[in-house]
Amino acid sequence: MEQEQPEHETTRVRLEIAYDGTNFLGWGIQPNLRTVQGTIEAAMGVLFTKYGGAPRLTVAGRTDAGVHATGQVAHVDLTPDQLGALNVRRGRSGADSLAYRLNGIAGLSSDVVMLGSSVAAPGFDARFSATWRRYNYRVEDASIARNPLVRNHTLSYPAVLDIDAMNDAAGSLLGLHDFATYCRPREHATTIRTLEHFRWTRDAAGVLNAEVRADAFCHGMVRSMVGLSLFVGEGKLSPTDAVLLLDARERTSEFKVAPARGLTLVEIGYPPDDELAARAALTRQRRDQS
Amino acid sequence: MEQEQPEHETTRVRLEIAYDGTNFLGWGIQPNLRTVQGTIEAAMGVLFTKYGGAPRLTVAGRTDAGVHATGQVAHVDLTPDQLGALNVRRGRSGADSLAYRLNGIAGLSSDVVMLGSSVAAPGFDARFSATWRRYNYRVEDASIARNPLVRNHTLSYPAVLDIDAMNDAAGSLLGLHDFATYCRPREHATTIRTLEHFRWTRDAAGVLNAEVRADAFCHGMVRSMVGLSLFVGEGKLSPTDAVLLLDARERTSEFKVAPARGLTLVEIGYPPDDELAARAALTRQRRDQS
Repeated sequence: MEQEQPEHETTRVRLEIAYDGTNFLGWGIQPNLRTVQGTIEAAMGVLFTKYGGAPRLTVAGRTDAGVHATGQVAHVDLTPDQLGALNVRRGRSGADSLAYRLNGIAGLSSDVVMLGSSVAAPGFDARFSATWRRYNYRVEDASIARNPLVRNHTLSYPAVLDIDAMNDAAGSLLGLHDFATYCRPREHATTIRTLEHFRWTRDAAGVLNAEVRADAFCHGMVRSMVGLSLFVGEGKLSPTDAVLLLDARERTSEFKVAPARGLTLVEIGYPPDDELAARAALTRQRRDQS
Repeated sequence: MEQEQPEHETTRVRLEIAYDGTNFLGWGIQPNLRTVQGTIEAAMGVLFTKYGGAPRLTVAGRTDAGVHATGQVAHVDLTPDQLGALNVRRGRSGADSLAYRLNGIAGLSSDVVMLGSSVAAPGFDARFSATWRRYNYRVEDASIARNPLVRNHTLSYPAVLDIDAMNDAAGSLLGLHDFATYCRPREHATTIRTLEHFRWTRDAAGVLNAEVRADAFCHGMVRSMVGLSLFVGEGKLSPTDAVLLLDARERTSEFKVAPARGLTLVEIGYPPDDELAARAALTRQRRDQS
């Protein structure tokens, strides 16, 4: 069983991150393309230029091009030299200073913000310790005035949407299912997931908000389920169709995947500190089996 | 007394407009600079290229560079030819189609949106019939996580703000006063205004929102009053200082004018239709006297 143990002498630092995904080609680093991981690692490269350069980030929820985050979590393992290079100021430890120092690097521009950093609890792994992910999807439908101030993170939909029908469809997807209908296929990747929450509400401004929570999501799953919701809301599909399409367990052209623009990763759930290591081991074991 | 009566044969059309002011040098048209008025008039020029070109817009609330609007109001007087050039579709009159047609012009980009258009009620003047203007100012203080998704219309302030002290100061400014302390001086322009509402609240996300309403605002007034609020909220000035500074009736360096980024024109108030003409005449008369 693969064990991504940090080097003996390193300290694991947990980072909380927010970004406007509009001008990023997603989280994952790619040569010559602007990505969130690439941007943050380049900033760490500046910070640690004399101390071995940029360490690698491990992230809880990899996001696609154009998808945003207000509650992303990542970790990074720092050597004693790197930790020492972070000035201790205002009584902060080096780990606590990492976010502050990164926000001060010119390469880190206004569309990505480090919200905080701290020494990770023992056994913590940003990706493998996570027990759930929560996303939000925002839609302005034709029943309300368009607001150009929020266009970077809100889909503008040219029809009036029936929220009750959308919630009927959303409710039918809850629980443990094979979500192959809603997953972009990936070799050796399971499409069985537990959908813990999926509900549409209208906020005070009339904007439709989907809150979606699962243990983990397969690739494209939230945007596919939102795409289905929009077709149901417009009356192009019925809530019953949602069940039939799920049961078919194959990709379909009956609805369109919703654009990245409206999607934000809001929160990553972790167990209590004393269960972090056990949870990470369990997740790794399941991955090995799948 | 000046009377801006429309030409006998024109039809006055009322427009509702929203824009993200980030990439505009304000409302008012300026040669070779990107302004909201310039952008919309250029789009009308395209629409009416065979019918006399772009007519001039009259706006309710001129906004400075970087200031946003979700409830701006303007009017334009169209000739029968121009009105006829707007295709009548889906049972709409030409006036009702203007907003729809303008949104379809390539020159009108995603940061300015026509929310609607209609034949104006008799006596309506977007500027002179207005009885009040309402603005909103948004501030993220150091007590909450920064959200890069709303950075285009939210000031990020590096201290924790005391909302009770800010409301004490705001309350002391209410009513009819000479607001010279809070006005950028303009020749022959009165600085006497009635401040009808000025209150800070925190929304569900913890963002501080100022709602400010007055019959009219002098130049820079909202941003000056917000700047005072921020200094009071941070403890650099007391609510009592707000009263002393108002009574001094002169510009001061005791606080800084707040940046344009956080400010949005939200709503323009008009009287009932049968009072529009009388109100416009009254406003023009007062301007002539001042």
